[in-house]
Amino acid sequence: VIAVADLAEHGPSKGSMIIKPYGYALWENIQRILDLKFKEVGIENAYFPLLIPQSFLNREKEHVEGFAPELAVVTMGGGKELDEPLVIRPTSETIMYDAYSHWIHAYRDLPLLINQWANVVRWELRPRLFLRSTEFLWQEGHTVHETAEEADAFARKMLEVYKKFLVEYLAITPVDGEKSETERFAGAAKTYTMEAMMQDGKALQSGTSHYLADHFAKVFGVKFLNRDNQEQFGEQTSWGVSTRLIGGLIMAHGDDKGLIFPPKIAPIQVVIIPIGKDEEKENVLRVAEKISVELIASGLTVKIDKTEGRPGQKFFLWEAKGVPVRLELGPKDIASESVVAVRRDTGEKTVLPQSELTVALPKLLSEIQDNLLKIYNTRLAENTVRVNSWEDFKTAIENNKFVMAHWDGTAETEATIKEQTNATVRCLPFAEPAESGKCIFSGKPSKSRVLFAKAY
Amino acid sequence: VIAVADLAEHGPSKGSMIIKPYGYALWENIQRILDLKFKEVGIENAYFPLLIPQSFLNREKEHVEGFAPELAVVTMGGGKELDEPLVIRPTSETIMYDAYSHWIHAYRDLPLLINQWANVVRWELRPRLFLRSTEFLWQEGHTVHETAEEADAFARKMLEVYKKFLVEYLAITPVDGEKSETERFAGAAKTYTMEAMMQDGKALQSGTSHYLADHFAKVFGVKFLNRDNQEQFGEQTSWGVSTRLIGGLIMAHGDDKGLIFPPKIAPIQVVIIPIGKDEEKENVLRVAEKISVELIASGLTVKIDKTEGRPGQKFFLWEAKGVPVRLELGPKDIASESVVAVRRDTGEKTVLPQSELTVALPKLLSEIQDNLLKIYNTRLAENTVRVNSWEDFKTAIENNKFVMAHWDGTAETEATIKEQTNATVRCLPFAEPAESGKCIFSGKPSKSRVLFAKAY
Repeated sequence: VIAVADLAEHGPSKGSMIIKPYGYALWENIQRILDLKFKEVGIENAYFPLLIPQSFLNREKEHVEGFAPELAVVTMGGGKELDEPLVIRPTSETIMYDAYSHWIHAYRDLPLLINQWANVVRWELRPRLFLRSTEFLWQEGHTVHETAEEADAFARKMLEVYKKFLVEYLAITPVDGEKSETERFAGAAKTYTMEAMMQDGKALQSGTSHYLADHFAKVFGVKFLNRDNQEQFGEQTSWGVSTRLIGGLIMAHGDDKGLIFPPKIAPIQVVIIPIGKDEEKENVLRVAEKISVELIASGLTVKIDKTEGRPGQKFFLWEAKGVPVRLELGPKDIASESVVAVRRDTGEKTVLPQSELTVALPKLLSEIQDNLLKIYNTRLAENTVRVNSWEDFKTAIENNKFVMAHWDGTAETEATIKEQTNATVRCLPFAEPAESGKCIFSGKPSKSRVLFAKAY
Repeated sequence: VIAVADLAEHGPSKGSMIIKPYGYALWENIQRILDLKFKEVGIENAYFPLLIPQSFLNREKEHVEGFAPELAVVTMGGGKELDEPLVIRPTSETIMYDAYSHWIHAYRDLPLLINQWANVVRWELRPRLFLRSTEFLWQEGHTVHETAEEADAFARKMLEVYKKFLVEYLAITPVDGEKSETERFAGAAKTYTMEAMMQDGKALQSGTSHYLADHFAKVFGVKFLNRDNQEQFGEQTSWGVSTRLIGGLIMAHGDDKGLIFPPKIAPIQVVIIPIGKDEEKENVLRVAEKISVELIASGLTVKIDKTEGRPGQKFFLWEAKGVPVRLELGPKDIASESVVAVRRDTGEKTVLPQSELTVALPKLLSEIQDNLLKIYNTRLAENTVRVNSWEDFKTAIENNKFVMAHWDGTAETEATIKEQTNATVRCLPFAEPAESGKCIFSGKPSKSRVLFAKAY
């Protein structure tokens, strides 16, 4: 699907990915929208070095243990062996917090709200385009606050920013909640996550936000004089989403014909296919250009397919590429001053007057956006089950359901369930009410259901 | 200056740089404006891997010789020694053209116009913030064309895009021209450059555009069936600007008080300083907020300095940070419904009615923009000299002038002049007319003057 749609391909070195223009345009849209939302919250962008002294990572025990197997290490620089190897950032907590320790002096310097858009490298043995690659693009936000409450609330707030973005733009309603201890980020006190359901029923972790407490602050000396004039360690958060979101977008929507991009994130919202031979062609192209200019002026992204080839082939191609609306424009349409608009999601054809396109198309795109979210939500509801027995649990997981079940909260049970069914605790959903129950596996008491699923 | 203005600082590993929010905002502005201009020309963004197999670089002889001393090499990945070391991209010709060789089949696939915004690493022994750092941010455009004429013209066109940007936004008129063979990019047939004059009279290479002919195409197999159905190698270009532009911006403008940012690129265009004690303060802040909201709605970037501290200290700080206009707002101004506007470039104070700010300030900012360009152009004209004798040449270079002089075109003379005076041939300016003359050093014949200067 990714190859046909010309989104990305594998690069020459193991696990690497080349993001082609049509795929990169998705990332540009994601960046543009999220960056605006970050700035509305008061977050500023900065840029920290790619190369981190190995000793920085070694300073936080859990962190280095979590990332050590995935590191790419620079041992040669400028033609010489380096005294201290440099690690390509797998994430930037260590190098950023070292800087923060110099930047922060008193409570007046807080909160410090910084984000960076960057590439990171985590060695990947089983690469898969947009889901797992040795290098990927992401944003990582890193904040410092005066109190634990404020930091924890901020971590939750950023997860909410992400979730809203997924719902409103990607037409994906993720299950949001807290990670179990096993799945927590290396060095975090709490990890919040969004788990999206792919069309095959598997979960995709689509973004995480961590409340770090003062673990890193103690290691890197991020401290400040508080309002009582006492020295205190900063309370921190970090949060990120990556090009993985594109993988989620691809696998959450689409059909046998290929991709379906929600209009609000689609690189091309409307494609115009001019139809006609020889002498007709020039006139059709002229009208196509006129329509395109009007639509672009009204804020839509539009492409005219001027390549040679039969219209039917072009229909297939742009369907595969997930463009929400196709306009077919031939000599008859020119005569009647209309176009045929075809919805990618339903295949429905409508004849629209050319004079009304700048009103009719935004409306149509908005309907498509809503419909894709509706389809997603229906699928999520139909494939989420609540089970109370181990047999029902196994059947549900075999059928790739999102399973809400009781769990005793121990890492041992979690590991055994994973071993036997390949399902993991995706999160302790915020939406699950307190409910006394018994662990699906051990029978031990549980206070609330958690989300189990197979995951990417 | 950079530290006081809080733009950037050195990172922990040698030659690395942390770009702080105020500095990064400049890069965001540069990116946003240039990216739009690239897209107007039909260029699309993509993203290629950071890590390049060493063998790729080895394939082009000049290229590898040019970059070998500056490479950072990854020899360990995922806990194991790599079979083939990976180089962190110093530039991406090799990895991009390898991909292009698969993407391009026939003339219909051309021109291929691709850009990427990325970080690159070139080992740096004498780091200097924004000018020379081991890692820097840039964009690199890489295009393929059917003919040599088209490719060469495109390389020139992109230099023109850059130059216009420098003049219109950065208030810098660079001297544009072609590089001598010695200073040419490793692997290029022609290198076009923009050389900006810094306030000390030294030149800063501010952006380059290369016509690569088919050198790389032959090495990487970038070929296509042309209109005569013959297999042919692609004609290529590459072009880039980097965070070095921020260094240029800092050194081209400014005075004893610190930086002066041209309004069209300034991260903050207007800073409001509320003045007043205790009971007055609340009212002043309320009016400041009202003014700020109105100005932001009219498209300006505005900051209110709400920190504690004396107004005088704040004036100094925001002057040092180069904000084009300061608004002073105190109880008297509230009473008279006016503000005092202070220009950063001239220091001139004007009393403006609060009701007219959304008209008066854009006009004032536009005047500042024009004035900074005028000051730059005057300095450039006053410090550019045309000399005809070796003695005059040496004196002019000692006095840090841009020197237009005849040169015999040989690398030997170029090297000797550099050795004796520290001046290099910055470019063969497009604007220099054909003019018979004798080389300033060797006395041999020359057909046109070239630009000599000391350079960063």
